[in-house]
Amino acid sequence: MADIRTSSLKSPIDVAEYLFTRLHQIGVRSVHGVPGDFNLVALDYIPQVGLKWVGNCNELNAGYAADGYARVNGMAAIVTTFGVGELSTVNAIAGAYSEHVPVVHIVGTPSTISQNDGKLLHHTLGNGDFNVFADMNREITCAMAKLTCPDDAVSLIDYALQQCWIQSRPVYITLPTDIVKKKVEGERLKTPIDLHFPANEQARENYCVDVVMKYLHEAKNPIILVDACAIRHRVLDEVHDLVEKTKLPVFVTPMGKGAVNETHENFGGVYAGEGSQPDVKERVEASDLILTVGAIKSDFNTAGFSYKTSQLNTIDFHSTHITVRYSEYPGVHMRGVLRKVIQQVDLNRLSTVAGPRMSNKVKENEDDSETITQAWFWPRVGQFLKENDIVITETGTANFGIWETRFPKGVTAISQVLWGSIGYSVGACQGACLAARDAGSDRRTILFVGDGSFQLTVQELSTMIRLGLKPIIFVICNEGYTIERFIHGMDATYNDIQPWHCKDLVNAFGAKHGESRTYQIRTKEQTNELFEDKQFSSANVLQFVELYIPKKDAPRALKLTAEASAHNNAE
Amino acid sequence: MADIRTSSLKSPIDVAEYLFTRLHQIGVRSVHGVPGDFNLVALDYIPQVGLKWVGNCNELNAGYAADGYARVNGMAAIVTTFGVGELSTVNAIAGAYSEHVPVVHIVGTPSTISQNDGKLLHHTLGNGDFNVFADMNREITCAMAKLTCPDDAVSLIDYALQQCWIQSRPVYITLPTDIVKKKVEGERLKTPIDLHFPANEQARENYCVDVVMKYLHEAKNPIILVDACAIRHRVLDEVHDLVEKTKLPVFVTPMGKGAVNETHENFGGVYAGEGSQPDVKERVEASDLILTVGAIKSDFNTAGFSYKTSQLNTIDFHSTHITVRYSEYPGVHMRGVLRKVIQQVDLNRLSTVAGPRMSNKVKENEDDSETITQAWFWPRVGQFLKENDIVITETGTANFGIWETRFPKGVTAISQVLWGSIGYSVGACQGACLAARDAGSDRRTILFVGDGSFQLTVQELSTMIRLGLKPIIFVICNEGYTIERFIHGMDATYNDIQPWHCKDLVNAFGAKHGESRTYQIRTKEQTNELFEDKQFSSANVLQFVELYIPKKDAPRALKLTAEASAHNNAE
Repeated sequence: MADIRTSSLKSPIDVAEYLFTRLHQIGVRSVHGVPGDFNLVALDYIPQVGLKWVGNCNELNAGYAADGYARVNGMAAIVTTFGVGELSTVNAIAGAYSEHVPVVHIVGTPSTISQNDGKLLHHTLGNGDFNVFADMNREITCAMAKLTCPDDAVSLIDYALQQCWIQSRPVYITLPTDIVKKKVEGERLKTPIDLHFPANEQARENYCVDVVMKYLHEAKNPIILVDACAIRHRVLDEVHDLVEKTKLPVFVTPMGKGAVNETHENFGGVYAGEGSQPDVKERVEASDLILTVGAIKSDFNTAGFSYKTSQLNTIDFHSTHITVRYSEYPGVHMRGVLRKVIQQVDLNRLSTVAGPRMSNKVKENEDDSETITQAWFWPRVGQFLKENDIVITETGTANFGIWETRFPKGVTAISQVLWGSIGYSVGACQGACLAARDAGSDRRTILFVGDGSFQLTVQELSTMIRLGLKPIIFVICNEGYTIERFIHGMDATYNDIQPWHCKDLVNAFGAKHGESRTYQIRTKEQTNELFEDKQFSSANVLQFVELYIPKKDAPRALKLTAEASAHNNAE
Repeated sequence: MADIRTSSLKSPIDVAEYLFTRLHQIGVRSVHGVPGDFNLVALDYIPQVGLKWVGNCNELNAGYAADGYARVNGMAAIVTTFGVGELSTVNAIAGAYSEHVPVVHIVGTPSTISQNDGKLLHHTLGNGDFNVFADMNREITCAMAKLTCPDDAVSLIDYALQQCWIQSRPVYITLPTDIVKKKVEGERLKTPIDLHFPANEQARENYCVDVVMKYLHEAKNPIILVDACAIRHRVLDEVHDLVEKTKLPVFVTPMGKGAVNETHENFGGVYAGEGSQPDVKERVEASDLILTVGAIKSDFNTAGFSYKTSQLNTIDFHSTHITVRYSEYPGVHMRGVLRKVIQQVDLNRLSTVAGPRMSNKVKENEDDSETITQAWFWPRVGQFLKENDIVITETGTANFGIWETRFPKGVTAISQVLWGSIGYSVGACQGACLAARDAGSDRRTILFVGDGSFQLTVQELSTMIRLGLKPIIFVICNEGYTIERFIHGMDATYNDIQPWHCKDLVNAFGAKHGESRTYQIRTKEQTNELFEDKQFSSANVLQFVELYIPKKDAPRALKLTAEASAHNNAE
């Protein structure tokens, strides 16, 4: 039977080869993951189709790394093994789902025969149920492909990869050990997967555009506010063209950092309600029409729901609908609508009131001490950054502090403001740095992570060393979970951590002589020296900085948000 | 309303105090976990009721540690935070479910008000669905208590803890931030939770016992084979009494290691089909009646389903049923049945044929070299072990190698033969070691973990240092995933790892001078010296040993099992 089936194929190739070739076609160059006995045979195909295998230290870190890789590269893949492997990374996959990041999760499973026989295999619950783990993935992935026979394998693979890209969310593919080498039609690979988002229904789109134009032309001082989904659903070209054409003031939310050129004359700063700089807050909240693009108005993205804007003054552009004031227009993607708005806007009828300008003005400490404070540090970082840097900030003081950093042009910012899983940034740094190298670029990758968060995923430092990556890693040494101290338990021992000699880990993890540099920075002067050091700035080896900031110091926005969280929890 | 309700309580106490007091009552002394903003207020109660907070480096490790703690202490608890925290540990909880380990998983969640309002909070999928993560836990826990109002909170808590103990599996409890301080009836704490397994229906039990007695008295050379669930479902006293009374030869499976006194004259060794020593295999397979107690006949526990025994010669004792040949007797727990079998067995009618005796006979290398081989090492370990040691072996060469180690009396063996999640053992070591200290004992805790597995969960070494624990840790340095090499890809790069200077991590993770010792052992002579070193043996500080074994050397049983796995995968 199998032979007859195979002989009917024009260019028979193995299922695993088909899958990995498709990944290569859509731009993946490195595959993250951890080997396990149910995926080993599949891993053999990775080098065969021109992909590289990463080999992370554990699956959660691999998932974070894939997420970081996808944010720079556009798409990522991770391979785990049934049960133990896939469950270890489930938090990272849920994070990618929450934050709209396209990650293809491939799980090597026991053979279909073992599954059908309900064999009592290792990596199972011992109850013969082989569907439990797939079921657990159902709500955190946007499509699922269980490859149980070659007949529909290619359709399922193509559909899953298409949905991953279009919905910009993770998909889940199971690859049983006995399916890996089954033959499928290789001819199909000559036709690329259609990754175009379906065009909007024109009448529906036009209706929506007319409504938007009406309010836009009527507004006295409209502004643009760019958020996460503008990045994730790939409308940055439209945002750029809208700003260029209209010259409207443009702001970003914390999750929207990096979406626009922050050195542009129209860039006004970061808006997050009470967490904003006073001039930004004043300007945004005085606006009579806010065009939000890809908004995710979550607690941490709004400094604890502290927007003082009205929905009556708001038009929200989303990937699945547009909301004008309280009217919903479902079934239209913002891309088509924005493109027509750009075409149709009448500059003579548009009222453009200039906004504030953001700069990296470094605040000196009130006490003139040499202590590195959060308030001093983040604008100073802005002076150090270069065009096209990739900046990763961990949930905690770093991803609130970065609100105060004005980026050079082309910076990609990576953080997990919505999902907020601590430890994420270390894995994401590995993935992002690798994606930049895979793209052949010399973009620097710079990580800011607190010493508490660093402990969760520390071993991914080893993977960066192993791969010969050259990130700049700042570990903010402030004795534990500072963000939690501000929410509850300022002096509680549960917010303390074991003190590590962090920089010694670089050698312990096997960095070879001359392939890394480590630093210990305790004063503003040392920081300035470091930032002005050309060798450091060149990032020609992996660099690891212990940066000491006082335990109870936090960015202003973090304090406000933490207070709101504590209030919300106690409600 | 709240006040009227509270004033009707005789001894009002807070929900969190009730929960943690119950944990203390059933024997928990240390609570594992990681702080997160939705559990912080609850953590304040831990010291108030006389419990200690561990504070692990990440949630997966915390879950593994709780599992190890439960295996020594009888029960364990872990606290995580909503979404990010609970999902990070889900693999450990699934492992505890698979391997029948009672772990109470408490998840701090957003307030019921935020949940009802569907607020767009951090740590959510951004879709207002607050039930997704609980649903993901449903199939890997045996009871669930969602504490959403004080009225039924105490009943739900008591029921969950009871089921955790009785079913010997994890339970899942959600504690919203606004429920933590709600008042409930403290009087109820005066009545302990009933943890007794309900007695069997007598007529049913007697019927079953009669059948067992009939076959037992008829058998020519019966034997006893003790497996994992004899330990987990707490019938070791019955097993002991059965052996003492009948003098029947007793064997253990790999998952049953530690269930019986291996120095007992009736102990015959480890049976795992083809993976057994020849004399064990011969004796067990020649038996005309095998009484299995708590069997889990999984692939890795049977050296790849290589039993050559017949169900026609088998009586299986389980916690939910008894199987005699092919007849099933549901609804009877083995405890009551075994107790009556002990009472009723007629020694005059019982045929007792002596079995083999296991010893730690160390095999010298065939080539007379000083290389440490797996075949040489494991019996040598048996000579080093002392009564009541706790021995933890990682999935890989260690948990197959340990089959060749005869334990002294009272040894507790911990490994994950069924679930087989690599990295487990490092967390489990922390938990087991802490449980021994919590019990006030001076039991040594000894870990054997491969260098590949060690990388997954390395940071739990830091927790052991932080807590001042004194385990003996052997990292088997053999350049990667040896078990996987034997399944597929002997020389594949995906089975390689980044080489670490493992022992340097002890200092990097902050061990203070004089509080640890590290070793590098490369020869048999060095091993012998180490094992004979009284200071080492006294385990008075944390000790960390790099033990070098060749990359392609594996225990005999591992090779057989890996071969069977590879065959099964390709089927």
